[in-house]
Amino acid sequence: MNDILKYLEGELPRINAFLEAEANKLDGVVQPAVKHVLGAGGKRLRPLLALLTAHALETEADLYPLACSLELLHSATLLHDDILDDAELRRGQEAAHLTFGKGSTILAGDVLLALANRLVADYGIPRLTSVLSEAIMLTATGEVKEIANVRNVDLSRDDYMDIITGKTAYLFQAAAECGAILSGKGPEMEQAAHAYGLNLGIAFQLVDDALDYVSPSDVMGKPSGGDLREGKMTLPLITYLATLDEKERTELLDQLVADSFTDEDIQRITGEVVDGGHAEATRDAAKHYADKARKALDAFPDTQEKSIMDSILDFVISRAK
Amino acid sequence: MNDILKYLEGELPRINAFLEAEANKLDGVVQPAVKHVLGAGGKRLRPLLALLTAHALETEADLYPLACSLELLHSATLLHDDILDDAELRRGQEAAHLTFGKGSTILAGDVLLALANRLVADYGIPRLTSVLSEAIMLTATGEVKEIANVRNVDLSRDDYMDIITGKTAYLFQAAAECGAILSGKGPEMEQAAHAYGLNLGIAFQLVDDALDYVSPSDVMGKPSGGDLREGKMTLPLITYLATLDEKERTELLDQLVADSFTDEDIQRITGEVVDGGHAEATRDAAKHYADKARKALDAFPDTQEKSIMDSILDFVISRAK
Repeated sequence: MNDILKYLEGELPRINAFLEAEANKLDGVVQPAVKHVLGAGGKRLRPLLALLTAHALETEADLYPLACSLELLHSATLLHDDILDDAELRRGQEAAHLTFGKGSTILAGDVLLALANRLVADYGIPRLTSVLSEAIMLTATGEVKEIANVRNVDLSRDDYMDIITGKTAYLFQAAAECGAILSGKGPEMEQAAHAYGLNLGIAFQLVDDALDYVSPSDVMGKPSGGDLREGKMTLPLITYLATLDEKERTELLDQLVADSFTDEDIQRITGEVVDGGHAEATRDAAKHYADKARKALDAFPDTQEKSIMDSILDFVISRAK
Repeated sequence: MNDILKYLEGELPRINAFLEAEANKLDGVVQPAVKHVLGAGGKRLRPLLALLTAHALETEADLYPLACSLELLHSATLLHDDILDDAELRRGQEAAHLTFGKGSTILAGDVLLALANRLVADYGIPRLTSVLSEAIMLTATGEVKEIANVRNVDLSRDDYMDIITGKTAYLFQAAAECGAILSGKGPEMEQAAHAYGLNLGIAFQLVDDALDYVSPSDVMGKPSGGDLREGKMTLPLITYLATLDEKERTELLDQLVADSFTDEDIQRITGEVVDGGHAEATRDAAKHYADKARKALDAFPDTQEKSIMDSILDFVISRAK
């Protein structure tokens, strides 16, 4: 962990300074919503991933436009997601659409999507734009699938994996892959970076879905059991449902479909999911993808950054928030 | 007009076939909203503008990915706009967010923005992406400004021009400019195309704002007087307000701010705006920008397409819907 923290300490101020400078160049009318989402903290995982991959491959180009474009893309999806989730909180503060209105928030997201594309276009390497655009298409598609499957009690584990790969992992994959593209080290390294980012992203989302059942609200900045409340069919719930007998299962699914859980129901089911080991089992599934990501790292030359990329896998698996 | 129609007859089927093919490649879960907005007709003005400009400059590249990316970008803004306008109708049919839900509609818009960027990245000319991304940023910014100035009775004519240039003209400008970039004929032609598109776009939106006061609902596919009802401060209203005496003006502005117009008020004021010649005066303002666009055309070589680009200026100025 220490090596991650040290790297973060060096890079976070530069990432944040670049983001702030870009936000300040925008028209005053869109700055408030943009600064609201960019200024709310967040782990800056995607920019770090781009920086680490590029550094690990000894890239000489200025990396901050690329790294920050990934945070801009991620922030754009957060602005849009919060509207469709009707979220009240984001990163522990009031969601942008409640402060600035739906319209301005949707459009501020569009501005960030476009700004990210423009920053990346300035490298003069069209493949960067292709990879990022493809990732955004897949991310939005994954999110539509997630919406379409809310309260779909027949959602399979495979379909669930498809959804989380879409909504989360492709942007991680694009971050690492673009870092490798910038390095100019060739298709083999791009492929390794692709596999590292994709599997890291899947592991990250699996742990996120496990934490939704175990974290008290003050740690996550949003109420625990939120996914269950919203009818999101995530892995802890899917594996828990498989352990119920026919009668219990039907009762619970009827309530889920009818959106009729009381607060006590949520607390009871969340408790049963955790006590039954389903959150832990989801974390174990995450370890499987972290191992795949680690294997992809083998192709990288031995550098300090490679070892940080390895530490990040441990962090993602073990994190408590 | 005949030359425009003939050109349209040749190009529209190809534009629509390309759009349909791209829509069919998308994941099934996002296809319905995408096909809804793409299939609802529309004038395909932006793709035509890109095609005409590129043809007028004897471009040999495949133009349909660029032309269609402009319709995809425009369609993405329509999907997002309808949510923030709470629109019920779009191009005469039910607005997408009412059919598919807000969430899927926002995300389908994001998919289209990303698809457009990917199509354009495939040309391998980063400046195309830069110009388009900049245009999308300015378009979204113009829309945020429009929202921020709803019922702002102090909106000046300059601020109004700034808003419509943002929300409409930059995408026209980008269409023409990208057509010129693809031609490889150099910065002078790109500049001329830029000026043609920008001024055409301003003229187009001015006429749109005039038509909102004069067109019966069955022609426009949306109720007439809609802008007044929504509190949008457009040029016909701004110049009409300037003719009222202090008392009348204060009364009307109080109602506008309070959003308290009755249907009779809307009909009466709309009538007064038209009878006072304010819709016509807005169309005259449009002619001024059409003339600027015509001047920019002087730099173009004499081709059939150039003469169609000239005819389009007449069409935009004189159109009744």
